[in-house]
Parts: sequence; structure tokens; C-alpha cells
Amino acid sequence: MPLLTLLTDFGLADWYVAAVKGVVLGLAPGTGIVDLSHEVPPGDVETAAFLLAAAAPTFPPGTVHLAVVDPGVGSERRLLAVEAGEARFLAPDNGLLTRILQGGGPVAVRAADRPDVYLPSYRPSSGEISGETFHGRDRFAPLAAALLRGEPFASLGPAIADPILLELPRPRREEGLLRGRVAHVDRFGNLVTDLPGAWLPAGTPFAATVGNALTATRRVSCYRDLPPGEPGLLVGSLGTFELSLAGEDLARSRGIARGAPVRIAFGPGARS
Amino acid sequence: MPLLTLLTDFGLADWYVAAVKGVVLGLAPGTGIVDLSHEVPPGDVETAAFLLAAAAPTFPPGTVHLAVVDPGVGSERRLLAVEAGEARFLAPDNGLLTRILQGGGPVAVRAADRPDVYLPSYRPSSGEISGETFHGRDRFAPLAAALLRGEPFASLGPAIADPILLELPRPRREEGLLRGRVAHVDRFGNLVTDLPGAWLPAGTPFAATVGNALTATRRVSCYRDLPPGEPGLLVGSLGTFELSLAGEDLARSRGIARGAPVRIAFGPGARS
Amino acid sequence: MPLLTLLTDFGLADWYVAAVKGVVLGLAPGTGIVDLSHEVPPGDVETAAFLLAAAAPTFPPGTVHLAVVDPGVGSERRLLAVEAGEARFLAPDNGLLTRILQGGGPVAVRAADRPDVYLPSYRPSSGEISGETFHGRDRFAPLAAALLRGEPFASLGPAIADPILLELPRPRREEGLLRGRVAHVDRFGNLVTDLPGAWLPAGTPFAATVGNALTATRRVSCYRDLPPGEPGLLVGSLGTFELSLAGEDLARSRGIARGAPVRIAFGPGARS
Repeated sequence: MPLLTLLTDFGLADWYVAAVKGVVLGLAPGTGIVDLSHEVPPGDVETAAFLLAAAAPTFPPGTVHLAVVDPGVGSERRLLAVEAGEARFLAPDNGLLTRILQGGGPVAVRAADRPDVYLPSYRPSSGEISGETFHGRDRFAPLAAALLRGEPFASLGPAIADPILLELPRPRREEGLLRGRVAHVDRFGNLVTDLPGAWLPAGTPFAATVGNALTATRRVSCYRDLPPGEPGLLVGSLGTFELSLAGEDLARSRGIARGAPVRIAFGPGARS
Repeated sequence: MPLLTLLTDFGLADWYVAAVKGVVLGLAPGTGIVDLSHEVPPGDVETAAFLLAAAAPTFPPGTVHLAVVDPGVGSERRLLAVEAGEARFLAPDNGLLTRILQGGGPVAVRAADRPDVYLPSYRPSSGEISGETFHGRDRFAPLAAALLRGEPFASLGPAIADPILLELPRPRREEGLLRGRVAHVDRFGNLVTDLPGAWLPAGTPFAATVGNALTATRRVSCYRDLPPGEPGLLVGSLGTFELSLAGEDLARSRGIARGAPVRIAFGPGARS
Repeated sequence: MPLLTLLTDFGLADWYVAAVKGVVLGLAPGTGIVDLSHEVPPGDVETAAFLLAAAAPTFPPGTVHLAVVDPGVGSERRLLAVEAGEARFLAPDNGLLTRILQGGGPVAVRAADRPDVYLPSYRPSSGEISGETFHGRDRFAPLAAALLRGEPFASLGPAIADPILLELPRPRREEGLLRGRVAHVDRFGNLVTDLPGAWLPAGTPFAATVGNALTATRRVSCYRDLPPGEPGLLVGSLGTFELSLAGEDLARSRGIARGAPVRIAFGPGARS
């Protein structure tokens, strides 16, 4: 039985995550389920897209990734199924799979449409028919179970060519200047950028600016080498540059959020 | 091996949830464990009762549900075991199983009393005898493991007829008026009421009031159809009405908490 | 397949915990993974050491415990592997395993050093080589998988005799006085001390002081017996004394944190 990962904005205080798991485990017994994260800020599709692309490559072939950050639940928005390499993804068609679709490899995209497996008449203990507010339980969980039970990817629905994509600015490499943005702020307050670490060879003088305020001119290879009180630049766990502050939450202390522009000037005169 | 769900107010920062799992997995190897929620506010039995009743129906037959919100741990309060349909429940006898017991189907109720399986002399690494503060680990986990290993429900203890019940007000349906309450506030700030959606046919004019302040007169079928800034009414994932505000936390923005009275006047003159 | 527990300061909002699990499940399919806690405050090695020692004894023999609170990641700090009884532990060599190493039983300690299993060239979807900031994914997860697949403990690396230890003050038992400290503050605000409950027989008059402010003179056997508004002393789930306040967060209401000194004067004149 392959693995299932779950990524949502449901939080952990409610019963929503458990309901999705209950349906999956009833339909595909023995599935191993891994929580990717459920603390995506409500409706924050871009954060979900980042987390999914970061974690998915670590999972073994055949894993099904179900991601439900779905402010359009119950509307006419489609349910998306994507096959990328040996991984399968299910998510609302709202841009959540942008980074998977733009990952560079071949992808197959389908609009999942399997009313035969949905739970349209799911009856809670009250005996009432539920509304259209919880497709994670009523539609996505049965779709995931179908894949986990071995139904072919192509059976989920028709191939489509127009999935919704987030407009994520691409990092740019210019003469003496790298232009990118803060792609994610992690729990420690590290600023994870979208700038590939390979774009700036170690030893090159540089000056990094985030927004208009922060400047780092020191590059280190691990957090411990950061000098106290001075932000530094290092290559992080996704191969991109991070800015970090020793033992402190850099994002909070400087009021920086996801999306802030990052500029790294480099070369002989970069620090002047 | 059947599934076990866990519902507690232990939070996720401590070692308490892991300890319950460690004991279960030692006594009933191979058990699949699903976290229902561990973020129940400390001692909030009513929230736990709500979450349990909401999630349990999604799990396959044979699942054991262990719920430990237990401010009376170590006192003379009983340990309750309930069989409802093909599900089994373990919880302190403090009202936590109220919604399961009042779910409408046949239930069997026993006072769990199996000192032969308890861990009364559990010895932490310090070598000390522990106190009576952690029955989740020392009593409930072994009881759950007994059920998971296939011991008959009736072996847990004597049948009883007087489990403690929360006094949950029942929603009422009067001439032109539905009277209920906010049964739960979810992560998104939605106000989940106890009023069945079937009590108000779509298209009926209405005016909904929560406490004394909030009025909604618009009904939608999904969150996306909510107009900006105006609360709306919709049938939620439990088949009851919810009040919601587009992209905002309605509960927080209006200062509404679980228990607030909800009135929905309906009929031709409802909005006047 | 034995069990794996995970203890980190990664939090639950990011993709870090899932990445560790993805690598483990790819290398050691079928592993049962239990989250011990991921809410250790960033870099708080002492809290991690406490939680690990509290939870590990509840798990069945053969369990592998992976603990990553690792501010020195990427530096020259060693990776530690410890065998204590039938449990195996992996953690950075920064004191995190202090309580396991000082638990009283025989332990074997090795400096894990297995570049053949590490993921030095882990390639995220960007195609970039990652930095040295995530040994949880790149080194510890493969090491854990090796143990879970049955590789012998001794194969992880050379035996060492000098693991780093936290200097944890030992509780003291003097004439009419117990001296200890607050070893942990739990979710409920209970002050878990390091003073063994066996050091003060029930019925002995006493006066307990935390820091300079708090005094408890009442001993109870369970939280429910605490009188409203008055802190009490009881033996907790680790066999040590706890101080607790009925239905309230004692730590927050009195501003007490981990490490606060605890003095319990006892005997005929203790309360005068």
C-alpha cells in the first residue's frame, strides 16, 4: 500500500484532519498517512504550494500527496489530479500545484471527476445531509483512496491543459546582481529565498538586501557560524539562499514577511 | 488490527500523547493510531464531546476511540466504555461521551474496571512509583490495547445505566423561529450551530441572530459565494447551519464564543 | 519493523518533519513513526532531554528514538548514537541525551559516522545541491533507517567515551529540607519538579517554596482534590513532585519558568 501525505489549512484543533483520515482508512485500509502540515494559514495557497514542493521529493515513489487549501470549496472550481514522475498529487485547481507543474519534469494533469466514489450523501450522526463545505472528506479523500487502492491515474477524469497557476516571480541573475524574493519564512524566522545557491560562488564579495532595510555581507555554511547580532547568508536545505540571524527570529525582529524582495549585489564593488 | 483514534487536551508540546501511544503500541503492536485532536482547551469536556461525535462516524467499523479530557483523573470518577454500532469508545465518566450516548442508536455502556491490565506500578526512568495523574497512560491505554487485541467489550467491566451526561440544550423549532446555539467555533472562525439545515428549506426568507448583535439574511451554498463583509448562512459539513464571513474569522471579529444563542426567524416577515 | 519516535524543535507549520519521515519511509518502508513532540522551543536542548527521558520508557523494546534539536547543525559537532537497554537513540552530541546517559543502566555510546548512507547530494526539485542546514533529513533519517532495517548498532560508528552532557543540578535531600528545581512546565501550567515523591512520606508536614514567592502546604493525590486558588503538591506521572493550581495555569499565573529553585521544608516545624 503506498503512502499518503496530507497538507491542509485545517489546523490541528478541529476534527477536520481526522475526518479525512477516517474516510481514507475506511476505503483504503492499511494506508500509511503522513501529515505534511496542517498549519498553512487559512486560504494561503502560496504557502501550501511551497511546502508541498519542498517535502514531496523526499517521499518514496508511488506516494499520493493530498493538499486541501480550498477557499473555493463547493464552487465550480475543479479538482486537480497530477502525476509527476512517480508521485501523484490531488488538490483544488487554484494554483496549489503550481510548483509541481513547473518543476521541470513531465507531468500529466487531469480534472478529477468521479461522482461514483464521492460521498455526496455523507450522513453525520445527526442524520442530516451535509453541505458542500468539506470536499476534503467527501471528495478528495475518496479520490486519494482510489489511487491508493491501485486504480489507474487516468481513471480519475479527463486530461486538461489549463490548470490554474500562481504567478510566482522568477528569480533573476543579472550583471553583478541577483534579484529574488523571500519564498518562505520558517519556524525559526529564517528567510528562505528563491535564489539558487549556485548563482553565487563561495568567496565572492556581496551585499544582500531584503526589502530596503536588511543588509548581510557575511556568508557562512551553517547557523553556528553566524556572528551574534549580524544577519548572514547561507545555502539552505532546498539549495537556495537563506538569510538568518544567530539564535533569533530574523523575520520577526525585522518585520519581514513572505514575498519581500531580495537583492544580492556581488562582485568587487558590491560592499561599497 | 483495528484503528485507534486519540482525542485529548494534552497539547502537542509535551510528552503525554507519545506516552499513551508508546503503551498502546507495546501492548497491541501494529495498531494504526490517528490523532483526532490534542488541542482541546484544558478540561473542556464539551468541546471534546463535539469533536468526537463529528469525527467518529468517518472511521471504519471496529475503530476504538480513546478520549481523555479528564480533570478528575485519580479521583473516584469511573472509566467509561461505550459500544455504539461497530465503534467502541473509552473516556472518563464526565460527560465526554454525551453525544455518542445520545446519538440515537443502541449503545452498550460499561464501567471499565480492569486492574489486571492497568499499569499501577509504572516505573519511569527515575525508578519512582508514579502518582495518579496520568490515567491516559496507566489505565486508558491498556484498556484500549485490550480492545484492540480482540478482548470482548463485555470483559472491560460491569454494565451501568447512569453514565454522566452533559446538559446540552436541544435546538428547537417553533412557529417561524429556530432556536439553537453555537455548538463549535472552528479554526476559520465559522460558527457551527446545532440547528439542522433541513429545518429551513432553501429559498425561505430568514433573519439569523447570534447573541444580540449579528444578523445574517443571506444564505449561500459555499464559502466563496459569501459577499465581502457580510455574514452568511450555509449548511456545513455536519448538516447543521453555519454562520461565516468571507475570508475572515467571524467569531473573533464579533467576539462570539461557543454557546452563544442562535435565533433564525423565518417566513414572509422574517426580515422586517 | 520496529518503531521510530521523532522529537524536534521543527514545529508543525513547516515541511521539515514530513521530510524526515519521507526519507525514513523510503529507506525503511513500513516503519511505524510516532511524533514525540515537535514543539520544543527552538534550540532548547534541555526541554528536549526532559521530554525524551519521560516518553522513551513507555515504548516497546527495539524502538529507535530520533531527537533533532540541533543549533550546531553543519558544524563539527558529532552525531551521537546511544543504546540503553533495548532502546536506541540518535541525536546531535549537544547534551540532548544527557538524561538517557545518566539513567542508571548500562549504555553504549557511539559517534555515528556513516557517509555511505548520508544524502550529501540530496537534490530538491530545484536541482540545486542543498547546504548543511538539515541533517535531520540528510544524515539522521538515513541513520535511523539503517537501525530500523536491522543494521547492527555497532556499525554506526566508533565507540566514544566523552559525549557532551548537560549540567543538570541534582536534587538534594538534607535534614528537614529537599532542594530541587522545576524540571518542566507542562501544557496545563503544572510545575514538574525533579524531587522524587518517595523523599517525603505522605502525612509529613511541609512547606514548599518555588523561587521566593510560592508556598504550598497542602498535599493531594489528584488534581481534583486541589482547593480553589491554593497551590498544592502531588506526586506526578514521573514519580516526582508537581505543584499545581486547581483549573489554572500555575506557571503563568505566578510567572514561574523551568529552572526555578524548589525547596520543600518538612518535619514538625516546617509550616511555622
